[in-house]
Amino acid sequence: MAIPAQVEQTYQPLTESAAIELAYQLNLFKNDTVLESREIGDGNLNLVFHIVEKGKEKGVIIKQALPYAKVVGESWPLSLNRAVIEANALKLHGKYAPGLVPEVYYTDDTLAVTVMEDLSHLTIARTGLIQGENYPLLSEHVGQYLARTLFYTSDYALDPGEKKELAKKFVNPDLCKITEDLVLTDPFFNHDTNDFEDGLQEEVHKLWGDFLLKLEVAKLKKTFLTEGEALIHGDLHTGSIFASETETKVIDPEFAFYGPIGFDVGQVFANLLFQVITRPDENRAPIINHIETVWAVFREEFSRCWEQDGQDVFTKTEGYLDYVLEKIWKDSVGYAGCELIRRTIGLSHVKDLDGIEDEKSRLTAKKNTIRLGRSLILNREKISSIQAFKQEIAWFSQA
Amino acid sequence: MAIPAQVEQTYQPLTESAAIELAYQLNLFKNDTVLESREIGDGNLNLVFHIVEKGKEKGVIIKQALPYAKVVGESWPLSLNRAVIEANALKLHGKYAPGLVPEVYYTDDTLAVTVMEDLSHLTIARTGLIQGENYPLLSEHVGQYLARTLFYTSDYALDPGEKKELAKKFVNPDLCKITEDLVLTDPFFNHDTNDFEDGLQEEVHKLWGDFLLKLEVAKLKKTFLTEGEALIHGDLHTGSIFASETETKVIDPEFAFYGPIGFDVGQVFANLLFQVITRPDENRAPIINHIETVWAVFREEFSRCWEQDGQDVFTKTEGYLDYVLEKIWKDSVGYAGCELIRRTIGLSHVKDLDGIEDEKSRLTAKKNTIRLGRSLILNREKISSIQAFKQEIAWFSQA
Repeated sequence: MAIPAQVEQTYQPLTESAAIELAYQLNLFKNDTVLESREIGDGNLNLVFHIVEKGKEKGVIIKQALPYAKVVGESWPLSLNRAVIEANALKLHGKYAPGLVPEVYYTDDTLAVTVMEDLSHLTIARTGLIQGENYPLLSEHVGQYLARTLFYTSDYALDPGEKKELAKKFVNPDLCKITEDLVLTDPFFNHDTNDFEDGLQEEVHKLWGDFLLKLEVAKLKKTFLTEGEALIHGDLHTGSIFASETETKVIDPEFAFYGPIGFDVGQVFANLLFQVITRPDENRAPIINHIETVWAVFREEFSRCWEQDGQDVFTKTEGYLDYVLEKIWKDSVGYAGCELIRRTIGLSHVKDLDGIEDEKSRLTAKKNTIRLGRSLILNREKISSIQAFKQEIAWFSQA
Repeated sequence: MAIPAQVEQTYQPLTESAAIELAYQLNLFKNDTVLESREIGDGNLNLVFHIVEKGKEKGVIIKQALPYAKVVGESWPLSLNRAVIEANALKLHGKYAPGLVPEVYYTDDTLAVTVMEDLSHLTIARTGLIQGENYPLLSEHVGQYLARTLFYTSDYALDPGEKKELAKKFVNPDLCKITEDLVLTDPFFNHDTNDFEDGLQEEVHKLWGDFLLKLEVAKLKKTFLTEGEALIHGDLHTGSIFASETETKVIDPEFAFYGPIGFDVGQVFANLLFQVITRPDENRAPIINHIETVWAVFREEFSRCWEQDGQDVFTKTEGYLDYVLEKIWKDSVGYAGCELIRRTIGLSHVKDLDGIEDEKSRLTAKKNTIRLGRSLILNREKISSIQAFKQEIAWFSQA
């Protein structure tokens, strides 16, 4: 497809008018339509333009990667290649989990632009959950998404040669570094990227001195650095999920790379746990139920795909599926713990916790989050069932 | 450097005269020197020309990859890119383990040619060991080679971004497939690549029906498929080592890729074990001593490099080095078991075993090899020290 005349062949951030021009050029709207553009990105890493016909609600999304991370100023340069990775991950994940990711209409690698389905009729799950929504199908959909995207990009399903070529295509050093540093390293050390309130000083200093915990985090980081099990989303928090009563769409896979399956599952667990920890007692059940359902659906669908489409002859070997699921489970519990801690004291926070206005309640919630995180990391080998997991949650989710 | 006129810009197998012409063009010899060429490859995967000045012994080696594996006829095509991988691995490993790999003088990616140091004054370790040589420095050198090449290409030593770019460069699907199939799959199933003598029928059928063993092999294969710990050699048997009383050179890293560290260590163990199993009792001690020394030197040097050059902040965390070494050890024991089995009943055999002329002795040695292999795979979590390993060896190395 032709590049709009007013946009040059070298990278430059789009303006709202350039975004509109691009939409016209792609024939996504009739020529005589009057289009409006609004930049709706949260502005950390990308520009996001919502292009609609004047007076209509549904249009298209034009997402463009910025060459730096705004969250820490312009000083953290990021490869524009992540736009290519995101678009390719959306397409591949969409192939295996149809309906659960936005449709991609067009990509431009030079401009780091992806034009995709407008999901503005949906709500970001984190926002909705904080407002008390429960999204009854959320966990069923997310469990399906996890099972199918992760199984079908793994060596269990793919010819190992094909998997290796994919792994090469999705090598993603810049975005992995963000996770390696901000999720799996800095929060456990006195590092200047950390950000926590004074009331947590005591917890944080205990954490930094906790050599048992650090050893377990080192092991989880090693797994993240070295184990290419499947094409994982890499940033699967509730801010990367659009939801409604009937629909679920997983967005923003710019962190995608070949990594450990449990990292995705664990981030989902942790970001649901923020709701368990912060909701009033009487509203927790649907979220605990979501956690249970995510795992149950993941386990069931992953097993179904394994039986049906396992290509490796060892997928027929007694006990191997159980071993793989157990490994994914333990990793998930551990990474959930890391996510709980980093969102409390690391650079990037969540509104579930920071949005609690009452200081005492907020500090209690954050201390519980840190302690639950620690316990999940330390005891992940022992927390061998969803029942044990729920028991662990119960110990750390009351005031 | 210019390509010799008589060699075209597209790939074609070199003749002896073309190899000589290439040597002249590279100015590796004076123009008026009379050169002789002899093809000395074992002919499975590559042509190997030994180019010398008439009457001299030492010259250069010109190695050229063939586009197929001759071991199974021309029907198993292999990417010529493995020549690039081999040359790059030789250079990188040579940087970290100077003196322990041949020097590379020139590479041509189109012709899949590497011109390198002539090591014909040395003997292939397997051949020498079978003849009763002991090579007193072999294990010290191999331990150093393993520790340094594997540590310095790992995430412990490298910036994770740099490691990821290297991992991408060394993606090696064709050669990995050979290992995945011939070492880690086919021997454990009734597959037509297998090759074993009639006297082993009973053992082989027990092996194929052994679901406990298959589950453990599945786990080791998963580790091989997914765990990119370091740039491993990938084919480190005693046929890939040149030795003398004073020198050791590791050659042929065309299988190199980012894989589990224990795979290299395990192949060394196994190929020494063939000697333990096949030598007369009174000549075993030096080989058992080699196994012990390989591990002791590996452990010591890897630890020294870790303390001195560990870049990841977690390398300072109490217990992490022990965890990493323990993981490498268990993987090594398991992969040693796989190598023992596949060299006995799989496609590619070793002369240590097949060279035993007396049928009864040969069958006894092969049965012991299979049983030791099985025990190492099954019990690798329990065989937690070199003492336990030696005890295990003793159970299966007597007639």
